[in-house]
Amino acid sequence: MTELKQMGERALAAKYILAALSREKKDQALYAAAKALQENCQEILKENEKDLEEGRKNGMHPGMLDRLALNEKRIDAMAEGLCQIAQLEDPIGEIMETFTRPNGLVISKRRVPMGVVGIIYESRPNVTADAFGLCFKTGNAVILKGGKDALHSNAVIEKVLREALASEGITPDAISLIKDTDRSVTNAFMRMNGYVDVLIPRGGAGLIRAVVENATVPVIETGTGNCHIFVDEDADLTKAVNIIMNAKTQRISVCNACESLVVHDKIKEKLMPALAEALRTKNVEIRADERIMSILDGCIPATEEDFGKEYLDYILSVKTVDSVKEAIAHINKYNTGHSDAIITENEAHAQEFLNGVDSACVYVNASTRFTDGFEFGFGAEIGISTQKLHARGPMGLKELTTYKYTIRGNGQIRG
Amino acid sequence: MTELKQMGERALAAKYILAALSREKKDQALYAAAKALQENCQEILKENEKDLEEGRKNGMHPGMLDRLALNEKRIDAMAEGLCQIAQLEDPIGEIMETFTRPNGLVISKRRVPMGVVGIIYESRPNVTADAFGLCFKTGNAVILKGGKDALHSNAVIEKVLREALASEGITPDAISLIKDTDRSVTNAFMRMNGYVDVLIPRGGAGLIRAVVENATVPVIETGTGNCHIFVDEDADLTKAVNIIMNAKTQRISVCNACESLVVHDKIKEKLMPALAEALRTKNVEIRADERIMSILDGCIPATEEDFGKEYLDYILSVKTVDSVKEAIAHINKYNTGHSDAIITENEAHAQEFLNGVDSACVYVNASTRFTDGFEFGFGAEIGISTQKLHARGPMGLKELTTYKYTIRGNGQIRG
Repeated sequence: MTELKQMGERALAAKYILAALSREKKDQALYAAAKALQENCQEILKENEKDLEEGRKNGMHPGMLDRLALNEKRIDAMAEGLCQIAQLEDPIGEIMETFTRPNGLVISKRRVPMGVVGIIYESRPNVTADAFGLCFKTGNAVILKGGKDALHSNAVIEKVLREALASEGITPDAISLIKDTDRSVTNAFMRMNGYVDVLIPRGGAGLIRAVVENATVPVIETGTGNCHIFVDEDADLTKAVNIIMNAKTQRISVCNACESLVVHDKIKEKLMPALAEALRTKNVEIRADERIMSILDGCIPATEEDFGKEYLDYILSVKTVDSVKEAIAHINKYNTGHSDAIITENEAHAQEFLNGVDSACVYVNASTRFTDGFEFGFGAEIGISTQKLHARGPMGLKELTTYKYTIRGNGQIRG
Repeated sequence: MTELKQMGERALAAKYILAALSREKKDQALYAAAKALQENCQEILKENEKDLEEGRKNGMHPGMLDRLALNEKRIDAMAEGLCQIAQLEDPIGEIMETFTRPNGLVISKRRVPMGVVGIIYESRPNVTADAFGLCFKTGNAVILKGGKDALHSNAVIEKVLREALASEGITPDAISLIKDTDRSVTNAFMRMNGYVDVLIPRGGAGLIRAVVENATVPVIETGTGNCHIFVDEDADLTKAVNIIMNAKTQRISVCNACESLVVHDKIKEKLMPALAEALRTKNVEIRADERIMSILDGCIPATEEDFGKEYLDYILSVKTVDSVKEAIAHINKYNTGHSDAIITENEAHAQEFLNGVDSACVYVNASTRFTDGFEFGFGAEIGISTQKLHARGPMGLKELTTYKYTIRGNGQIRG
């Protein structure tokens, strides 16, 4: 625990230095870090192999092993990620607003780093480099807590990045990795008020819940997505089928995949047979309510629990409604505030849906899969916020910043 | 606890209605609420008297009794507050940004209410009306948990406001007051994820800490202020004395009052005698470090603890430093991220201070007492945020909102 506190002290000292770095200096360090990853490729792979060996020994699921595995191409991609971040605009120092008060005080709202960002993540080791790059570009120090499964990989990446920073004359404490895998250390990390300004968990629903439950440091909840698509009575059926197929099956394990379909009663008989046939080609299981069951063979009855579930699998729940209003109410009840879509050619219905659905991203006639920092044109992404405080939806560089007011006077006092 | 959950369900239902109200409808209801407070003045005073009687019986401190007491003038002021909020611009619905992606998706960032705002506050009953007004104007439902000491007063104000809303055809669940004073209910309130979108504690350091420690709902920390004034070697001494006197003594019990003075060694002998004399006229106790003690009689030696303390009293700690850099480091170590000022005629020093001090509001040559929603021209204030997430410094109407992305396509799917 003393070690964690010392890490906190060092990050605290580093944040003041990082906040003052010029864009040029930061970009130069990012390029140096990218080069260092490539130059140390063999050492990184050697350490990664230790994690993989451990994983195989412990019977890790092949999908998980794949997420954990690095190779030259993946290390190049990590390096390329850092170079791309270097090319992005630096948001720090932007004057967001300036106003003069009647008493002559000149108040400016200036964009500044958060300070120390904490990130808790699961087994993909590329997050180590990626999260460092985004935090560093925005003048933040980052403290990382990766999964136990990827400890060797994360540690060597941290070491390479720290050395690269030092060789550029920048404090290596811009990045620190917590290597103690004891749960009590993780819990203490979540309660480092005064050291950590914001905590961003990246991972599955269980991880997010644990952080929300235990943290006293401000948290940005990310990435749990029970995304809905509502097919309105006035939908274009071709669009509907294409969008649903894309949102459900293009990549099943991601938070912006569609998990639940809501269908207007008046269109169910036109839509469902064609859709079910398309879904069958991808082996998608349909869990439907009674009204759908009555017109479609081969479905499984949906339970209440199905409507609230993020499957991350080839499964789709289907609910029938009689109006846009009922669709909105159903979605607001079961969604996770991530992304929901309406398929309709009716402008009034589209407006009603955009106004009524309470989620970060509300779509008309497009796939929910577009909820993504790159697809939004932010050039980067640290996560998808599903809370309302601070940031909502895809979080890029700006979302890793805050502001401060600077106020200039000439002796003003309050009357 | 079932009662609390039911209150949550009603607020949840109300938030969708409130989010859709026009500015006109909201302003009309605010005027009606103001009128109702004045019309029910006698009933409110009668209930307030019950709280005061209880307070006197329990030996409540006279200052606290004064904060608790209502009279016709104070009720008029509450009503006037609601009318003023009605006159402010409605931030809801503002399109903050719109951009078109290469694939034709049109993405708009639209300002929307938070949803359900929770507020936990101490004994001033005017907060009940005030917090309702700010949340209502921004389309939020509010759930209030006031202090036990003010229960009768808060309950009658809530009743009057709910009746006024109902008479305007608006759901009274726009405001709910938790009347169960059991601590377990307050704790459950702090953990109403899925019902409450943000929790704002308003009160002393103990209350804020309890909320930060216990809440799982996102919190905005407010109002703990250990504000510093640094008198640089190049300060104008008249400005310095005036500003320090104002910040320390104009109102001692507020979060933007000055608690700690940092003095450049080279100016201490010119500044301190004149300042000490002025402070003596207001009976301000000086707790100073050794270097100040050696040149000034009648001080008390400052301990380490003094530098970190929010006195809210006629006490001022004084620390000597040898440079702007050392002043910044001292302030960043001991401040609460609220407001800090430099007094200097040296532009380079001013810049260094503005850049280096990590607080919500950083001043040059002005009193820290200006950190206030009204003084900043926001027209209202729900609190002063001392955290970096979401909002920093004075929070007005905009800070009670979030945004959502609306995305319009014509069949786009992700490749």
